Amino acid sequence: MTALPTSARPVIESGHLGHVVTMNPDGSPQVTCVWVGLDGDEIVFGSMSDRQKLRNLRRDPRIWLSIATDIRNAIGLEEYLVVHGTARVTVGGGAELLQRLAHTYLGPGVKFPPMRHSSPGFVVRITVERVGGVGPWAPE
Amino acid sequence: MTALPTSARPVIESGHLGHVVTMNPDGSPQVTCVWVGLDGDEIVFGSMSDRQKLRNLRRDPRIWLSIATDIRNAIGLEEYLVVHGTARVTVGGGAELLQRLAHTYLGPGVKFPPMRHSSPGFVVRITVERVGGVGPWAPE
Repeated sequence: MTALPTSARPVIESGHLGHVVTMNPDGSPQVTCVWVGLDGDEIVFGSMSDRQKLRNLRRDPRIWLSIATDIRNAIGLEEYLVVHGTARVTVGGGAELLQRLAHTYLGPGVKFPPMRHSSPGFVVRITVERVGGVGPWAPE
Repeated sequence: MTALPTSARPVIESGHLGHVVTMNPDGSPQVTCVWVGLDGDEIVFGSMSDRQKLRNLRRDPRIWLSIATDIRNAIGLEEYLVVHGTARVTVGGGAELLQRLAHTYLGPGVKFPPMRHSSPGFVVRITVERVGGVGPWAPE
């Protein structure tokens, strides 16, 4: 049973950047943006290299993610999704995932990454534990 | 001397949501989205009520903010701005600030907040200490 409501799934696949928060070793948050997608009930993103956020997640798997939408609610406010979850970093498949997400984020037929990489890259897989924000997915 | 590069100023005034991170008492990050604007070299946002993020900022003034753009860089990636700064919460002026920002976020002539409030609201003022992300404002 996933904590990801059906209403939130299109937001994750909409092509809006995911604003990702992980925890640095000193307890401060690290904030970056990534392309996000779904693999079943998991939220996924890819990376070609072993970045700070991946090292953070191996040490502390807690992750927070926020995504804007183009939807305005009844009083005109832009809806957005906030997800809290637990992530695991898996080796390989990063290039394939980025290529799949490039079709959403850059356009059909776009080749990405543009350069050939010797590394197979990484995939981060997020189990959703709680959602919030403004939208039908948010608890009252 | 502000740490906010001139190139980043239009991003803050573009009408994209600011994804805001503050620190909860238990050391976990709180993630929400707000309308953002500039007042001189400070990044500002308003709130009509005393929310968790305002209580967090009074206890721990550190704040992180990320904002997407519609700009694609040379390899097609969407530029985004990450700001780290220190915030102070001031009482009053929240309604006026939200009304000013509504012209950017909702459209010219839109009245906001839609309901009359008895509270004067709050303004959060952020002194920028560091910027990052993807764009001309980000250090190499």
